[in-house]
Amino acid sequence: MTRHDSDRVFIFDTTLRDGEQSPGATMSHAEKLEIAELLDEMGVDTIEAGFPIASEGDFSAVSEIAKRTKNATVCGLARANFADIDRCWEAVKHAKSPRIHTFIGTSPLHRDIPRLTMDELANRVHDTVSHAHNLCDNVQWSPMDATRTEWEYLCRVVRIAIEAGATTINIPDTVGYTAPVESADLIRRLIKTVPGADEVVFATHCHNDLGMATANALAAVAGGARQIECTINGLGERAGNTALEEVVMAMKVRGDIIPYHTGVDTTKIMNISRRVAAVSGFSVQFNKAIVGKNAFAHESGIHQDGVLKNAETFEIMRPEDIGLAATSIVMGKHSGRAALRSKLEELGYSLAGNQLNDVFVRFKALADRKKEVFDDDLVALMRDSAATDESDRLQIKFLRVICGTEAPQSADLTMSVDGVDRQVTATGDGPVDAVFRAVRKIFPHEIDLQLYQVHAVTQGSDAQATVSVRIEEDGRIATGEAADTDTVVASAKAYVTALNRLLVRREKTAPDADRKSIRQTDSAV
Amino acid sequence: MTRHDSDRVFIFDTTLRDGEQSPGATMSHAEKLEIAELLDEMGVDTIEAGFPIASEGDFSAVSEIAKRTKNATVCGLARANFADIDRCWEAVKHAKSPRIHTFIGTSPLHRDIPRLTMDELANRVHDTVSHAHNLCDNVQWSPMDATRTEWEYLCRVVRIAIEAGATTINIPDTVGYTAPVESADLIRRLIKTVPGADEVVFATHCHNDLGMATANALAAVAGGARQIECTINGLGERAGNTALEEVVMAMKVRGDIIPYHTGVDTTKIMNISRRVAAVSGFSVQFNKAIVGKNAFAHESGIHQDGVLKNAETFEIMRPEDIGLAATSIVMGKHSGRAALRSKLEELGYSLAGNQLNDVFVRFKALADRKKEVFDDDLVALMRDSAATDESDRLQIKFLRVICGTEAPQSADLTMSVDGVDRQVTATGDGPVDAVFRAVRKIFPHEIDLQLYQVHAVTQGSDAQATVSVRIEEDGRIATGEAADTDTVVASAKAYVTALNRLLVRREKTAPDADRKSIRQTDSAV
Repeated sequence: MTRHDSDRVFIFDTTLRDGEQSPGATMSHAEKLEIAELLDEMGVDTIEAGFPIASEGDFSAVSEIAKRTKNATVCGLARANFADIDRCWEAVKHAKSPRIHTFIGTSPLHRDIPRLTMDELANRVHDTVSHAHNLCDNVQWSPMDATRTEWEYLCRVVRIAIEAGATTINIPDTVGYTAPVESADLIRRLIKTVPGADEVVFATHCHNDLGMATANALAAVAGGARQIECTINGLGERAGNTALEEVVMAMKVRGDIIPYHTGVDTTKIMNISRRVAAVSGFSVQFNKAIVGKNAFAHESGIHQDGVLKNAETFEIMRPEDIGLAATSIVMGKHSGRAALRSKLEELGYSLAGNQLNDVFVRFKALADRKKEVFDDDLVALMRDSAATDESDRLQIKFLRVICGTEAPQSADLTMSVDGVDRQVTATGDGPVDAVFRAVRKIFPHEIDLQLYQVHAVTQGSDAQATVSVRIEEDGRIATGEAADTDTVVASAKAYVTALNRLLVRREKTAPDADRKSIRQTDSAV
Repeated sequence: MTRHDSDRVFIFDTTLRDGEQSPGATMSHAEKLEIAELLDEMGVDTIEAGFPIASEGDFSAVSEIAKRTKNATVCGLARANFADIDRCWEAVKHAKSPRIHTFIGTSPLHRDIPRLTMDELANRVHDTVSHAHNLCDNVQWSPMDATRTEWEYLCRVVRIAIEAGATTINIPDTVGYTAPVESADLIRRLIKTVPGADEVVFATHCHNDLGMATANALAAVAGGARQIECTINGLGERAGNTALEEVVMAMKVRGDIIPYHTGVDTTKIMNISRRVAAVSGFSVQFNKAIVGKNAFAHESGIHQDGVLKNAETFEIMRPEDIGLAATSIVMGKHSGRAALRSKLEELGYSLAGNQLNDVFVRFKALADRKKEVFDDDLVALMRDSAATDESDRLQIKFLRVICGTEAPQSADLTMSVDGVDRQVTATGDGPVDAVFRAVRKIFPHEIDLQLYQVHAVTQGSDAQATVSVRIEEDGRIATGEAADTDTVVASAKAYVTALNRLLVRREKTAPDADRKSIRQTDSAV
């Protein structure tokens, strides 16, 4: 029995590396730690936590995740050079189970960038994988753009990587180019052809450019791969990566024809999906498989009509399987602390005493303004409460906005800057513009507003709105999110939260500009 | 040579039937006609325009689309009874090329609902398909939940349908349950086994519950299917249907291993995707394949860095292939009428003289408030202009809102009702709630606000916001959409637009409640 005969498939999550690399999806340090913890709790086998040499921020996130992670292997990405690999090892070495993932482009188009001959590139593979293997027992190697690499040459470099000590060989479909039959065939032929292939785990890393990432990943498993690289919500460059929730649920639902299993606790899917959508600012479309708002919408149809004899008629999985409570207790102003705690635990938040007190006060304030407090309202409350911090340099004290059909709209804002209250009035095109101008008047700055999004959290016109803001300054990116029944107030809070985070980054880190250029040229595995 | 040897795949679009059936995606009559026209122009082979017996509204939409469509076959859906089939024929018979699509659930779970024995159901298939064939040469038949139907029985009913005159046999994966190998195998075995199968076209209708609809549809084609049923943006019940743009582009990009072609002009994809997202209220996620905002985001990376030697390095299709202009001329206050007309044509809008004048006035007003007017701003302007109508019963004349951190927020609204101006002040939880309450104070009504969404149209804090609102009253659903640099004003306009539409429907149509229950129990092909 070789490694390819087992029916256990390892889940390698790269939400924090390939996912975070999507233009606009940058996450903060704290957000990365939170997502890593959720990934570890849900039972993924390996967390690719970042690209340590890309920036100080990436390094510290990978290093911190390595220290904190309880069960999963923690992996960092490194290009095919010693400096990258050394830096990666520095970051992951603290993990209980560390892994170095090094890669190089092997297709004709990618070989052309560093202008290496086939022989030179093959030598580079040998030298870099050997170097990584000297540092760490657990080495993963990827030939970038494998699906467009010449067959003979692909076999040659895979063999070299295995001989040099790689324990996982990942075959990336970097441009989302393959189809299921081809994907299965490629892995099957590699395992059959390359000497030593039986001793390593083959991995599949698919992109969704043609909408087939999930099918391609599962086909690769049928071909003998035993690690799927994927992200929550299919986050990732361009059309994204294979969605973790889709491959995991497909194996669970169709065990009869996809006879493999993973270590993932599927009931954690919905919560982590919501968190990744929130921190990345990449909303999940209503008709997204598994985690879209409508994915289980037949449920309500069934309940409303009451005519269907059997839920299975239109149902192949249960909402509970992904952690979506079938029936949900609605909270209100009479709900107590214990009910709140138990509801929050159900939603995946466990709070210490002080935190609970703080959230309870905010919950009561919300319940006074809103008839019914739904699960999604509480999730918004929790996000909001994670976003504010007493040590923030900028704090909104008072806001009053006048807007309507007669321009210009105006904002009257009192904000404290480093503890000193300041008051201004500003006008703008629309209430949000007026508010942002008022903030800039009190605290002058030049930033680029990259994203401004509003979502109603629940139904009804007294619903809370969640506003997400992403701002950029000299390549540094910061996001802010806030919820309020007043969209304008939520906008102001989200903007100031993003600004506070940017100020912290201004002090702590070098600009991300370098990091960005490294990423965009070299790390699109 | 049989029908399964050709490499031409027919595209059957069901955006207006299965897509519109998604909870919350109801489209207006005018919107349906517009989408049908775009589908016809892009070269789909068959438009499934609706479910004629479901409601008067469905009937008149299908009938009108049948009359107007220039090239495509126009199809209507009918359950397995004579009344449905007759009604369907009444609606589609005006088409140059009409088709009746009739279906019945054949799996054990679905047979159980009408409590038919296998023999009774088989007789029903014979009778209903014969009846449809007597009315129309072009008959499509679907065994609903085919992928969970017993093999022997499936062969039997397919044979009966062919003998009774069906010319297209559609094999629906109603619950999104299948996987590529199984999908190909099922079609291949049916064609091999069922007598007469060579004389008909087999179709595949996949749902995306496990994220594999695109791969399953293409696998079915490899197995011999020559019609793919799909929707724009993958709209459809639960996780949606196969996305038209994904299967069409996969065949185009991977002609080497997916050697089939369609009649679709792919350069029309982006425009129709935007329109369907707008009228359905179902936004496309950033990381959606082909049509997501980030699908071609590598482009900017490449341009920014300027280090990559060859665009193909990370690019398997060009933005132009789907009608996304690579470089875009930004419009501003100095742009003239001719520039606006040519830009709007580029975006897919052709305007008569009067319409252009109206839009030009609105464009100038926007350009005065906004430095740069981007393509997306113009699309929002066009949507907004389609939404307002001088015959509307309710019209907003003046709005002034005061909001901020000190509750309650208040709205001062003047609105004309049937030509008479009325003025009120109302307070609420948040500015939007205050505005909606003011509208209700002037024009009392009881509706359920099902959806309230805000999107920033372009970047920057002076961006326009597009607000989508969906309201429901006694099963009647109406949507409204409006754009403005002031989110609160856009909210008011969108809400009043939806309300005006609801008033029209109140007068014209029977409640959709019946239609809804018909659909939810019987038409989930």
